[in-house]
Amino acid sequence: MTDIEEEIKEPWTPLAESIDNDDAQGVVSLLESLDTADAARAIDRLEEEQREKLMTLVEPERAADLLDQIPYAQVVDIVDGLEPEHAADIIEELPSDTQADVLGDLEPHEAEEILGEMEPKQAAGARLLLAYDEDSAGGLMRTEFLAFPQTAAVRDVVENMRANAETYSDFDVQYAYVVDGNACLAGVLRLRDLLLNPAGRCVADIMLGKPLSVHHDMSQEELARFFDDHHFVGAPVVDADDHLIGVVLAEDVAEAEVEAAADDFLKVSGLSGGEELRSMPLKVRSMRRLSWLSVNIGLNVMAASVIAMFQGTLEAVIALAVFLPIISDMSGCSGSQAVAVSIRELTMGLVRPADLFRVLLKELQVGLINGLALGCLLAVVALAWKGNAWLGIVVGAALMINTIVAVCLGGLIPLVLKRFDRDPALASGPILTTVTDMCGFMLVLGFATLALAHLT
Amino acid sequence: MTDIEEEIKEPWTPLAESIDNDDAQGVVSLLESLDTADAARAIDRLEEEQREKLMTLVEPERAADLLDQIPYAQVVDIVDGLEPEHAADIIEELPSDTQADVLGDLEPHEAEEILGEMEPKQAAGARLLLAYDEDSAGGLMRTEFLAFPQTAAVRDVVENMRANAETYSDFDVQYAYVVDGNACLAGVLRLRDLLLNPAGRCVADIMLGKPLSVHHDMSQEELARFFDDHHFVGAPVVDADDHLIGVVLAEDVAEAEVEAAADDFLKVSGLSGGEELRSMPLKVRSMRRLSWLSVNIGLNVMAASVIAMFQGTLEAVIALAVFLPIISDMSGCSGSQAVAVSIRELTMGLVRPADLFRVLLKELQVGLINGLALGCLLAVVALAWKGNAWLGIVVGAALMINTIVAVCLGGLIPLVLKRFDRDPALASGPILTTVTDMCGFMLVLGFATLALAHLT
Repeated sequence: MTDIEEEIKEPWTPLAESIDNDDAQGVVSLLESLDTADAARAIDRLEEEQREKLMTLVEPERAADLLDQIPYAQVVDIVDGLEPEHAADIIEELPSDTQADVLGDLEPHEAEEILGEMEPKQAAGARLLLAYDEDSAGGLMRTEFLAFPQTAAVRDVVENMRANAETYSDFDVQYAYVVDGNACLAGVLRLRDLLLNPAGRCVADIMLGKPLSVHHDMSQEELARFFDDHHFVGAPVVDADDHLIGVVLAEDVAEAEVEAAADDFLKVSGLSGGEELRSMPLKVRSMRRLSWLSVNIGLNVMAASVIAMFQGTLEAVIALAVFLPIISDMSGCSGSQAVAVSIRELTMGLVRPADLFRVLLKELQVGLINGLALGCLLAVVALAWKGNAWLGIVVGAALMINTIVAVCLGGLIPLVLKRFDRDPALASGPILTTVTDMCGFMLVLGFATLALAHLT
Repeated sequence: MTDIEEEIKEPWTPLAESIDNDDAQGVVSLLESLDTADAARAIDRLEEEQREKLMTLVEPERAADLLDQIPYAQVVDIVDGLEPEHAADIIEELPSDTQADVLGDLEPHEAEEILGEMEPKQAAGARLLLAYDEDSAGGLMRTEFLAFPQTAAVRDVVENMRANAETYSDFDVQYAYVVDGNACLAGVLRLRDLLLNPAGRCVADIMLGKPLSVHHDMSQEELARFFDDHHFVGAPVVDADDHLIGVVLAEDVAEAEVEAAADDFLKVSGLSGGEELRSMPLKVRSMRRLSWLSVNIGLNVMAASVIAMFQGTLEAVIALAVFLPIISDMSGCSGSQAVAVSIRELTMGLVRPADLFRVLLKELQVGLINGLALGCLLAVVALAWKGNAWLGIVVGAALMINTIVAVCLGGLIPLVLKRFDRDPALASGPILTTVTDMCGFMLVLGFATLALAHLT
């Protein structure tokens, strides 16, 4: 492996060539020689059309494997560009939960075209999953699971497993489920117990009865907590009538959690349109970033207009212009820390929107200490620079008060947004900086106006 | 459950009372009546001493379960406050990987005291794990696994499993491993195959030979990719001599990934000391935040000192003071977006430090478009406000150029930091904003100085 890696420093060049030459064999052997990370990197570097062509050059099963390896943000674009019958062949090879994710992220008419080309049974399964909220147990579950009637004997189960070994080997499932005559969940069968019991025994006698199950509308956070509590590989999902409809794997919930954490990271960084990859078209990348920046520049102009109101003071004490960006930036930093703590505590379920008062109290204490420390620091800098104690008092007091405001607001804003079902990661930052900028500018320039006689 | 929840809106009040009254029975029945989220919240709201006392009131096994439910940031503090023999009793009940995590995060002499109180075999196991880097397979693995000699028969294995059913039920392991005479990994045994084969068969005949294993120093990112490729519940971990030393579970790797993503989120938000919970002591919360803020205020003062160099220009055109914070903030926003894309692409393995030129090229394109758009927008605002086209040109051109600089730098800084083994999530932000602030102030005020005749 190392030899090949050293040989092919940029594996996308030969990959692109093989694709352009319709050399399916070359593509397959090249991809097989690469580890997953290099394969993903090589596919990332291809042109959009080459990526789509790659999917049609290889067998649908391998194409599905490749889709599993590359970032999800690319998968939808690729499927989007394929002919519906090609896309259907590949999607049929994906696990049911991924099928539903991809189809759900396509335009409805495109998803419908692909569903029309899929095997009717698979299409029906995908439609079922599409009906659920993608962050619920119904949306995260897979429909590949083993279920046996409660009247079956150990022998029947073992024979069935032997006969279908091929099919079942694709199932990421470690348990079999037992259902009653109404297709309702009756018990869970551990493979271990099949092993330790005589062949003639009825599964109803050896199953674990009253099994824990999750309701199809259980949220992703609740599922994460469920799997924290119970170290299961998966849990059966039931509908309102207790019918067994699927199985949600701890692995899939964990993956959804990683995505949610990454999503928060992107949103606080000002990327509101989801994952951006540099292989995406320039227009998409630029527009997604601009949509956020253009809101922000509006808010910025609004906040800075406060400065214009104090033109006279500024003209008299030009040194204040140096401190305005410092106070704006430092308040933003102090507030962002509090925002991050609130978002994390909300995610961990340690704080709820109703806890406003407790959060305010806790942040007020930190705000007082840190405001005092930063305010004194800045006052000393101002004094040292201009030798004017009043200038120190003005900028120090402004930073102190504004830090307290920023820290309290930063703690509260995510809770209030959550209360009104808005996304804290997305909106907290701009709201915070706009308010603290306005407040900060007003404090510095207001205090300076009051102390004008001592500053000039 | 719902009734109780409605009754006890603030479950920490009765919990605190029961703890203060040494009412172990009351504590247990109260905790049992709460779901995990409420239990975690209730424990979070206790005083530090109450939390420690709670751990000594209940059985060590239950205490270990509780530690599993509360945020990890609290676990170390709690264990830290316990008597070594108490701590040892509880730690013995934790899974081996968590044992090593907790002991590794304590002060070395405290960890040593607790290890001294632990059962010698468990202490030896914990010491073994402590020796590995916590982000490697060795650090993430568990030492609870099933291994059988390759000469064993199916019957032997089944009998052993039956005899030790109690012990093994604590193992989160779905496979058994087969080792040769040198304790080297020889194969993997699926429970299914024990089921389908006669009792007298030798396990060497039915095991899957040449099993995939991971080396103890495989990194967390590589492990995540490994489990993406192979949908295993766990993988055997081997040392340099191919000895089987543990098993790493996909579940534990996923959890480490969630933590890493949350960690990036905290770091870009200016929380460099790890997870902060509002239940932590005020001093800790305030100091951790201040340590970051005080570096930042230094950088801020440095950047703003550029403004002082252009005092004459500012005095002549006071309107410029309004635009300085806008240009500083907008450049920061544009740069942060590029930073986030680079950090994500680094995490996903799509970009490497050597890809500097490609990233520069990609970001330059976005920077040109977005810089032009934002620059024009700000120019129009300036023109509309002061009716002076030259002011529009000065601030528009400065924002345009500074956006290009910020976007390119934002894309490159994480790669450079990664190249020198620094943490991109932690250091990218401050470096970026300091450079772009200085550059932005210099551009606006420099251009204004050149065009001074047209501005006054």
